[in-house]
Amino acid sequence: MDFEDMRQFRQLCARPERICWVVAEYRGQRSICPLGWKMWTSGNPPMMAISVAPQRFTHDLIANSGEFVLAWPGGDLAEATLYCGTHSGRTYDKFAECKLTALPAEQVKAPLIKECLVNLECKVVNKMTTGDHTIFAGVIVAVHVTSPSGKLLLSIDEHFGYDFLLQKGGYRFGVIK
Amino acid sequence: MDFEDMRQFRQLCARPERICWVVAEYRGQRSICPLGWKMWTSGNPPMMAISVAPQRFTHDLIANSGEFVLAWPGGDLAEATLYCGTHSGRTYDKFAECKLTALPAEQVKAPLIKECLVNLECKVVNKMTTGDHTIFAGVIVAVHVTSPSGKLLLSIDEHFGYDFLLQKGGYRFGVIK
Repeated sequence: MDFEDMRQFRQLCARPERICWVVAEYRGQRSICPLGWKMWTSGNPPMMAISVAPQRFTHDLIANSGEFVLAWPGGDLAEATLYCGTHSGRTYDKFAECKLTALPAEQVKAPLIKECLVNLECKVVNKMTTGDHTIFAGVIVAVHVTSPSGKLLLSIDEHFGYDFLLQKGGYRFGVIK
Repeated sequence: MDFEDMRQFRQLCARPERICWVVAEYRGQRSICPLGWKMWTSGNPPMMAISVAPQRFTHDLIANSGEFVLAWPGGDLAEATLYCGTHSGRTYDKFAECKLTALPAEQVKAPLIKECLVNLECKVVNKMTTGDHTIFAGVIVAVHVTSPSGKLLLSIDEHFGYDFLLQKGGYRFGVIK
């Protein structure tokens, strides 16, 4: 392995990256874990997959409950994202610390986050270990969009725009400026 | 399921999205499949996971060989990306049609793509079915970066830049303008 090449690739491939919050609850304990390692993994039924490290408090809440909420923050939750990503739910009540409002979900026990732009209720249908993380694949059983024109929070770098390259049908391509 | 909410979420969450090409080979047959559904899934060892639909020609090449290359195109390969994403390797030789150069890899049989900015050689260590796709989790066994300052191809929308919000340590957040 060429470590310099790996460092360069990680830098090239890290940003922009949308951030989502994984919200999980089990037996009265709950937490919020912001992450960038997620992907769509099925169109029908709609499913998303997330990668969560086993040492995360949220990991076992998901593994034990078999459910999670994916809550998508907007720009006003950048500070809360930083807080939730750098503190453990074992010690801190992230809902109280970040003044977040938990709302009851329809299909899962984990709460929705009122302040987020989108909340997806997910049930785990499959999981597997991958190196130092676990992939949980969740089928989306309910969707709540608060603000269709909202702007989702992203992890970004110093590049502030795109050069447009090509559009054809539904495809549209560009590169960072 | 609220289908209007789902439509809105898919729109909010679709772009920007980096595009990578999955390159696979088995018993002399090879193909290239561009996709957006991929994620990091382990830091140590470095691993990436991809979601591939079973009806894709590339799917069985990966399943049978247990290997793939992730090749990351730059802006000059937007047309080739469109071509490879809309034609099947069962019928078309994408290497010839797009004038791509296959180079031998070090650790896997699937070829590197000379014209791409980055090539990752991956060995499948785990896979699982998720709705209408399969997740292949691959450990990265070799990395080749051709151009460290290159700009990777993205699927983009009409938003051409970001508003910067917050930076602290290695974290940096913004939203699309």
